[in-house]
Amino acid sequence: MKNVCLILEYIGTDYCGFQRQKNGLSIQEILENCIFQATQEQCKTYPSGRTDAGVHALGQVVNFFTSSQLPAKRFKTVLNNILPFDIRIVDSFEVDKNFNARKSAKKKTYVYQIFNGKDMSVFDVNRKLKCEYELDLELMQQGAKLFEGTHDFSSFVASNATTKTTIRTIYDANIIKNDANIIFEVCGNGFLYNMVRIMVGTLIDLGRGKLTLKDIEVLLSTTNRQLAGKTVNPGGLYLKKVEY
Amino acid sequence: MKNVCLILEYIGTDYCGFQRQKNGLSIQEILENCIFQATQEQCKTYPSGRTDAGVHALGQVVNFFTSSQLPAKRFKTVLNNILPFDIRIVDSFEVDKNFNARKSAKKKTYVYQIFNGKDMSVFDVNRKLKCEYELDLELMQQGAKLFEGTHDFSSFVASNATTKTTIRTIYDANIIKNDANIIFEVCGNGFLYNMVRIMVGTLIDLGRGKLTLKDIEVLLSTTNRQLAGKTVNPGGLYLKKVEY
Repeated sequence: MKNVCLILEYIGTDYCGFQRQKNGLSIQEILENCIFQATQEQCKTYPSGRTDAGVHALGQVVNFFTSSQLPAKRFKTVLNNILPFDIRIVDSFEVDKNFNARKSAKKKTYVYQIFNGKDMSVFDVNRKLKCEYELDLELMQQGAKLFEGTHDFSSFVASNATTKTTIRTIYDANIIKNDANIIFEVCGNGFLYNMVRIMVGTLIDLGRGKLTLKDIEVLLSTTNRQLAGKTVNPGGLYLKKVEY
Repeated sequence: MKNVCLILEYIGTDYCGFQRQKNGLSIQEILENCIFQATQEQCKTYPSGRTDAGVHALGQVVNFFTSSQLPAKRFKTVLNNILPFDIRIVDSFEVDKNFNARKSAKKKTYVYQIFNGKDMSVFDVNRKLKCEYELDLELMQQGAKLFEGTHDFSSFVASNATTKTTIRTIYDANIIKNDANIIFEVCGNGFLYNMVRIMVGTLIDLGRGKLTLKDIEVLLSTTNRQLAGKTVNPGGLYLKKVEY
């Protein structure tokens, strides 16, 4: 039995998310079917975390156990030959038996892409959020910095989420502008359900003058999902990397 | 009756090409259905030219005649509200009765995108050609320059094409490199069936040492479809703009 680690890139648009679901096609179902084709084994895959319907990945990490003779390094090529075009294995290698993509993760980095111009290219649909408001980028960067540190993010979680603790540590949060493109990049020890998308909705409200820096401080010291911004579209969100 | 001109952007991946076909969904069929929804008129649309299955457009030009009261400028918004996400109207305006998107066209510019690195992002699939050969970019640029001028491009046309003349004028042809991305941009008074894709296949053969500059000169002075490069994938090709 060996523990194989996969680094995955995928376009989330046509999937109900990473996790297997009864009512939709998931990345996990496709991946496990392809692993079965390659190994003739029903292997359960363990991701670093779920990604929601429509959310993309540049560096999702998944592990699974197999007794296949296939060297771990070969899984990249073998799986890429059978996976659909919108799911790619960037790398595959053997890891320690104790490695678990979710439990062993130390840091995760997400990016969220906003197109802040008038006419968004058709090639960016489902890949960036179109936002036509005039935004104060400097203020948004100051707002992003408020997220850094250890906080109770209970104002930044979907109301239907169930989780033991809403305390998370954000190591780094930045707003980067590149022509009409605004990128929010955030690295933390973990993220609550919808947390990055609510952070982005909140920063947009800040940038357009609907919220103040003071409001964000209040959101981080109390629980008030209503005051926070809305949960922006999944299409702009990318799981960039997971560090161990 | 007014003559309305549309500038279109589309992702060609899921279509059988611009032109209406019996056995596939075309951009023209969708566009004409949407114009019908907007005007209650069966309007025939005239494009600057066909694009093949899988080929994209950044600036396709189409005109149609309508007696609708809807101002030409409004078609952009009205049609964008009913078109699928992968077809966008960039602009709409009224043109002279004599304007015909194909016949009035003076220049067309195409771009072809090549990814010349090891691991192409999943987000570039169907949008760039993956090419792992080591390529001599300087030689390819010299090859591109040979296309400029008025030539008989009969070596650069699909064998099943029917056309009155194979003589075309290329005003400008360039190879541009940007990290792992290579872009071929070509502007001419018109293009034969598959001409840009065969030009790109030929430039790749030149860049990898399978063909020489002398071979390209021969191709431009004789008819030899076999000597020319292969017809590369449609996914890397974009109709960038049409000038009048």
